[in-house]
Amino acid sequence: MKAIVRVYLYDDAGNRFFGEGPYRLLMGVERLGSLKKAADGMGMAYTKALAMVRRAERELGFALTEKVIGGKSGGGSYLTPQAKEFLRKYESYRDACYEADAAIYRQVFSEQ
Amino acid sequence: MKAIVRVYLYDDAGNRFFGEGPYRLLMGVERLGSLKKAADGMGMAYTKALAMVRRAERELGFALTEKVIGGKSGGGSYLTPQAKEFLRKYESYRDACYEADAAIYRQVFSEQ
Repeated sequence: MKAIVRVYLYDDAGNRFFGEGPYRLLMGVERLGSLKKAADGMGMAYTKALAMVRRAERELGFALTEKVIGGKSGGGSYLTPQAKEFLRKYESYRDACYEADAAIYRQVFSEQ
Repeated sequence: MKAIVRVYLYDDAGNRFFGEGPYRLLMGVERLGSLKKAADGMGMAYTKALAMVRRAERELGFALTEKVIGGKSGGGSYLTPQAKEFLRKYESYRDACYEADAAIYRQVFSEQ
């Protein structure tokens, strides 16, 4: 038996707008320089990926990706500095939760 | 923006067997004295509820519910002492995670 914790960010109306899905998508954009490629890599439709990014942007109040038009590679997307800062905060939050919760698990279920 | 954390228990093969769903179901059994009524109260099919309980029992290695046959009320189910002890541990674990994670959220996202 082991514990798995999932962390999510919700808007004030109670709708989820961020978690591991959008996080992995944006990490893909950072790595691949393209929202399309990042979505493909997750087996996700581009339209769904775009909606996911727009949804988070609306709640956060800043752009997460910017488009590069044309160029040698035929264009793509990159993360804004604010997106990178937000992703680092999300990682800090998530990883600290995982660590704290693992310690709590060991404490509560140690006799199990 | 706010954070919501979900805690789950998994078996060693990586399959989820416990979380808020089974927890609420068993709390319903405790309150209503019937797995059928507890499932109904959650809009869940009895067969699904039974499978959920059996799945958790297999992983935990002890019975969670016992049937009462017949009697004035026409029978029902109650929680075993081991089930009650397990539920209290799960609550301790879950609530301590929620509390620790809320403090981490405030710390990380306070400037957001």
